[in-house]
Amino acid sequence: MPTTITSHANAIAETNEKFMIAFRKKDAATMARCYTEKAAILPPQSDFLSGANAIEGFWRAVMNMGITDVTLATSELVEFGDAAYEVGRYTLLAGEKIADRGKYVVIWHHERGAWKLHRDIWNTSVAA
Amino acid sequence: MPTTITSHANAIAETNEKFMIAFRKKDAATMARCYTEKAAILPPQSDFLSGANAIEGFWRAVMNMGITDVTLATSELVEFGDAAYEVGRYTLLAGEKIADRGKYVVIWHHERGAWKLHRDIWNTSVAA
Repeated sequence: MPTTITSHANAIAETNEKFMIAFRKKDAATMARCYTEKAAILPPQSDFLSGANAIEGFWRAVMNMGITDVTLATSELVEFGDAAYEVGRYTLLAGEKIADRGKYVVIWHHERGAWKLHRDIWNTSVAA
Repeated sequence: MPTTITSHANAIAETNEKFMIAFRKKDAATMARCYTEKAAILPPQSDFLSGANAIEGFWRAVMNMGITDVTLATSELVEFGDAAYEVGRYTLLAGEKIADRGKYVVIWHHERGAWKLHRDIWNTSVAA
Protein backbone atom coordinates (compact mmCIF):
# COMPACT_ATOMS: atom_id res chain seq x y z
CA MET A 1 0.00 0.00 0.00
CA PRO A 2 1.45 3.38 -0.96
CA THR A 3 1.97 5.75 1.94
CA THR A 4 1.09 8.80 -0.15
CA ILE A 5 -1.21 8.90 -3.15
CA THR A 6 -1.03 12.27 -4.80
CA SER A 7 -4.10 12.24 -7.07
CA HIS A 8 -6.14 14.49 -4.77
CA ALA A 9 -3.38 15.93 -2.63
CA ASN A 10 -3.89 19.32 -4.25
CA ALA A 11 -7.62 19.36 -3.56
CA ILE A 12 -7.02 18.42 0.07
CA ALA A 13 -4.24 20.98 0.40
CA GLU A 14 -6.65 23.59 -0.98
CA THR A 15 -9.24 22.81 1.68
CA ASN A 16 -6.54 23.03 4.36
CA GLU A 17 -5.46 26.39 2.94
CA LYS A 18 -9.05 27.64 2.97
CA PHE A 19 -9.37 26.43 6.57
CA MET A 20 -6.23 28.30 7.70
CA ILE A 21 -7.18 31.52 5.88
CA ALA A 22 -10.69 31.43 7.37
CA PHE A 23 -9.21 31.01 10.85
CA ARG A 24 -6.97 34.05 10.39
CA LYS A 25 -10.01 36.03 9.21
CA LYS A 26 -12.01 34.87 12.27
CA ASP A 27 -14.52 33.35 9.85
CA ALA A 28 -15.73 30.28 11.73
CA ALA A 29 -18.65 29.77 9.31
CA THR A 30 -16.26 29.19 6.41
CA MET A 31 -14.20 26.84 8.59
CA ALA A 32 -17.36 24.82 9.33
CA ARG A 33 -18.04 24.56 5.59
CA CYS A 34 -14.66 22.80 5.18
CA TYR A 35 -16.28 19.83 6.97
CA THR A 36 -18.73 17.24 5.61
CA GLU A 37 -22.42 17.42 6.50
CA LYS A 38 -22.06 14.56 8.99
CA ALA A 39 -18.65 15.59 10.29
CA ALA A 40 -17.51 15.20 13.88
CA ILE A 41 -14.55 16.84 15.58
CA LEU A 42 -12.87 15.30 18.64
CA PRO A 43 -11.30 18.19 20.56
CA PRO A 44 -9.20 17.63 23.69
CA GLN A 45 -11.09 18.24 26.96
CA SER A 46 -14.44 17.86 25.18
CA ASP A 47 -16.80 15.16 24.01
CA PHE A 48 -17.35 14.62 20.26
CA LEU A 49 -18.90 17.66 18.55
CA SER A 50 -21.06 16.87 15.50
CA GLY A 51 -22.57 19.00 12.78
CA ALA A 52 -21.91 22.41 11.30
CA ASN A 53 -23.34 24.50 14.15
CA ALA A 54 -21.32 22.77 16.85
CA ILE A 55 -18.15 22.87 14.75
CA GLU A 56 -18.57 26.55 13.93
CA GLY A 57 -19.19 27.30 17.60
CA PHE A 58 -16.08 25.39 18.63
CA TRP A 59 -13.77 27.30 16.30
CA ARG A 60 -15.37 30.62 17.25
CA ALA A 61 -14.64 29.78 20.91
CA VAL A 62 -10.99 29.05 20.03
CA MET A 63 -10.74 32.45 18.31
CA ASN A 64 -12.35 34.07 21.36
CA MET A 65 -9.65 32.50 23.55
CA GLY A 66 -7.14 34.70 21.73
CA ILE A 67 -5.79 32.20 19.19
CA THR A 68 -5.05 34.23 16.06
CA ASP A 69 -3.48 31.74 13.68
CA VAL A 70 -3.43 28.02 12.89
CA THR A 71 -0.83 26.34 10.69
CA LEU A 72 -1.35 22.81 9.37
CA ALA A 73 1.52 20.78 7.87
CA THR A 74 0.64 17.46 6.25
CA SER A 75 3.14 14.68 6.94
CA GLU A 76 1.17 11.77 5.45
CA LEU A 77 -1.81 11.53 3.14
CA VAL A 78 -3.28 8.20 2.00
CA GLU A 79 -6.34 7.94 -0.22
CA PHE A 80 -8.92 5.17 -0.53
CA GLY A 81 -11.33 6.10 -3.30
CA ASP A 82 -13.67 8.74 -1.89
CA ALA A 83 -11.91 8.84 1.48
CA ALA A 84 -8.43 9.58 2.73
CA TYR A 85 -6.57 9.90 5.96
CA GLU A 86 -4.11 12.65 6.73
CA VAL A 87 -1.55 12.81 9.52
CA GLY A 88 0.07 16.13 10.26
CA ARG A 89 1.32 18.72 12.67
CA TYR A 90 -0.36 21.94 13.79
CA THR A 91 0.80 25.14 15.41
CA LEU A 92 -1.51 27.63 17.11
CA LEU A 93 -0.39 31.22 17.57
CA ALA A 94 -1.70 33.86 19.96
CA GLY A 95 -0.28 36.94 18.30
CA GLU A 96 3.49 36.35 18.09
CA LYS A 97 3.46 33.63 20.73
CA ILE A 98 3.12 29.88 20.12
CA ALA A 99 0.02 28.93 22.12
CA ASP A 100 0.21 25.24 21.29
CA ARG A 101 1.76 22.79 18.89
CA GLY A 102 0.71 19.24 18.28
CA LYS A 103 -0.41 16.63 15.80
CA TYR A 104 -3.62 15.50 14.17
CA VAL A 105 -5.35 12.82 12.16
CA VAL A 106 -8.10 13.84 9.73
CA ILE A 107 -10.40 11.46 7.85
CA TRP A 108 -11.34 13.15 4.59
CA HIS A 109 -14.41 12.44 2.45
CA HIS A 110 -15.11 13.47 -1.08
CA GLU A 111 -18.58 15.00 -0.86
CA ARG A 112 -20.42 16.70 -3.75
CA GLY A 113 -17.28 17.48 -5.70
CA ALA A 114 -15.14 18.69 -2.81
CA TRP A 115 -12.75 17.09 -0.34
CA LYS A 116 -13.92 17.87 3.20
CA LEU A 117 -12.87 17.00 6.73
CA HIS A 118 -15.07 14.23 8.11
CA ARG A 119 -13.38 13.25 11.36
CA ASP A 120 -10.81 15.55 12.99
CA ILE A 121 -8.83 14.67 16.12
CA TRP A 122 -5.71 16.28 17.54
CA ASN A 123 -3.65 16.59 20.69
CA THR A 124 -0.81 18.69 22.00
CA SER A 125 2.83 17.64 21.69
CA VAL A 126 3.83 19.95 24.57
CA ALA A 127 4.72 18.15 27.81
CA ALA A 128 2.31 18.78 30.69
CA MET B 1 -20.35 5.42 1.47
CA PRO B 2 -21.40 3.03 4.26
CA THR B 3 -20.54 4.24 7.75
CA THR B 4 -19.86 0.72 9.00
CA ILE B 5 -18.70 -2.24 6.96
CA THR B 6 -18.78 -5.38 9.01
CA SER B 7 -16.72 -7.78 6.91
CA HIS B 8 -13.67 -7.49 9.15
CA ALA B 9 -15.25 -6.00 12.25
CA ASN B 10 -14.70 -9.28 14.09
CA ALA B 11 -10.99 -9.40 13.22
CA ILE B 12 -10.52 -5.82 14.36
CA ALA B 13 -12.53 -6.43 17.54
CA GLU B 14 -10.28 -9.43 18.22
CA THR B 15 -7.14 -7.29 17.99
CA ASN B 16 -8.73 -4.72 20.31
CA GLU B 17 -9.59 -7.52 22.75
CA LYS B 18 -6.01 -8.84 22.60
CA PHE B 19 -4.74 -5.27 23.21
CA MET B 20 -6.94 -4.80 26.30
CA ILE B 21 -6.08 -8.21 27.76
CA ALA B 22 -2.36 -7.59 27.22
CA PHE B 23 -2.65 -4.25 29.02
CA ARG B 24 -4.31 -5.87 32.04
CA LYS B 25 -1.53 -8.48 32.10
CA LYS B 26 1.13 -5.73 31.93
CA ASP B 27 2.36 -7.32 28.71
CA ALA B 28 3.55 -4.34 26.68
CA ALA B 29 5.36 -6.57 24.17
CA THR B 30 2.08 -8.19 23.10
CA MET B 31 0.47 -4.75 22.90
CA ALA B 32 3.25 -3.62 20.54
CA ARG B 33 2.60 -6.67 18.35
CA CYS B 34 -0.98 -5.43 17.83
CA TYR B 35 0.56 -2.64 15.72
CA THR B 36 1.90 -2.79 12.15
CA GLU B 37 5.63 -2.84 11.50
CA LYS B 38 5.62 0.82 10.45
CA ALA B 39 3.08 1.96 13.02
CA ALA B 40 3.13 5.31 14.77
CA ILE B 41 1.26 6.36 17.89
CA LEU B 42 0.43 10.01 18.61
CA PRO B 43 0.12 10.30 22.39
CA PRO B 44 -0.90 13.56 24.09
CA GLN B 45 2.05 15.55 25.51
CA SER B 46 4.47 13.68 23.25
CA ASP B 47 5.79 13.75 19.72
CA PHE B 48 4.97 10.88 17.34
CA LEU B 49 6.40 7.55 18.52
CA SER B 50 7.24 5.08 15.72
CA GLY B 51 8.14 1.42 15.69
CA ALA B 52 7.67 -1.53 18.01
CA ASN B 53 10.32 -0.60 20.60
CA ALA B 54 9.01 2.93 21.11
CA ILE B 55 5.40 1.72 21.24
CA GLU B 56 6.21 -1.03 23.73
CA GLY B 57 8.13 1.47 25.87
CA PHE B 58 5.24 3.92 25.81
CA TRP B 59 2.69 1.39 27.04
CA ARG B 60 5.09 0.08 29.68
CA ALA B 61 5.47 3.65 30.95
CA VAL B 62 1.66 4.00 31.15
CA MET B 63 1.50 0.79 33.21
CA ASN B 64 4.29 2.10 35.44
CA MET B 65 2.22 5.26 36.07
CA GLY B 66 -0.31 3.03 37.84
CA ILE B 67 -2.85 2.56 35.05
CA THR B 68 -4.19 -0.96 35.48
CA ASP B 69 -6.89 -1.28 32.84
CA VAL B 70 -7.88 0.11 29.45
CA THR B 71 -11.32 -0.30 27.90
CA LEU B 72 -11.92 0.44 24.20
CA ALA B 73 -15.44 0.85 22.78
CA THR B 74 -15.78 1.16 19.00
CA SER B 75 -18.37 3.70 17.88
CA GLU B 76 -17.58 3.70 14.15
CA LEU B 77 -15.61 1.39 11.88
CA VAL B 78 -15.24 1.99 8.14
CA GLU B 79 -13.18 -0.24 5.87
CA PHE B 80 -11.41 0.53 2.61
CA GLY B 81 -9.92 -2.68 1.27
CA ASP B 82 -6.80 -3.37 3.33
CA ALA B 83 -7.30 -0.35 5.57
CA ALA B 84 -9.99 0.90 7.91
CA TYR B 85 -10.59 3.72 10.29
CA GLU B 86 -12.11 3.30 13.72
CA VAL B 87 -13.52 5.97 16.01
CA GLY B 88 -14.16 5.06 19.62
CA ARG B 89 -14.05 5.85 23.30
CA TYR B 90 -11.55 4.71 25.89
CA THR B 91 -11.50 4.51 29.65
CA LEU B 92 -8.34 4.13 31.74
CA LEU B 93 -8.56 2.76 35.25
CA ALA B 94 -6.08 3.03 38.10
CA GLY B 95 -7.38 0.24 40.32
CA GLU B 96 -11.04 1.10 40.97
CA LYS B 97 -10.64 4.75 40.00
CA ILE B 98 -11.23 6.21 36.53
CA ALA B 99 -7.88 7.80 35.67
CA ASP B 100 -9.00 9.17 32.30
CA ARG B 101 -11.68 8.83 29.68
CA GLY B 102 -11.55 10.07 26.14
CA LYS B 103 -11.80 9.24 22.48
CA TYR B 104 -9.59 7.94 19.72
CA VAL B 105 -9.14 7.42 16.00
CA VAL B 106 -7.20 4.39 14.79
CA ILE B 107 -6.13 3.72 11.21
CA TRP B 108 -6.01 -0.05 10.74
CA HIS B 109 -4.01 -1.96 8.15
CA HIS B 110 -4.34 -5.56 7.11
CA GLU B 111 -0.77 -6.86 7.33
CA ARG B 112 0.30 -10.48 6.75
CA GLY B 113 -3.09 -11.95 7.52
CA ALA B 114 -3.93 -9.84 10.56
CA TRP B 115 -5.61 -6.48 11.19
CA LYS B 116 -3.24 -4.23 13.11
CA LEU B 117 -3.20 -0.66 14.40
CA HIS B 118 -1.22 1.57 12.05
CA ARG B 119 -1.91 5.08 13.33
CA ASP B 120 -3.31 5.62 16.83
CA ILE B 121 -4.28 9.03 18.24
CA TRP B 122 -6.42 9.88 21.25
CA ASN B 123 -7.22 12.66 23.66
CA THR B 124 -9.03 13.13 26.95
CA SER B 125 -12.69 14.12 27.14
CA VAL B 126 -12.24 15.38 30.71
CA ALA B 127 -12.35 19.18 31.07
CA ALA B 128 -9.04 20.74 32.16
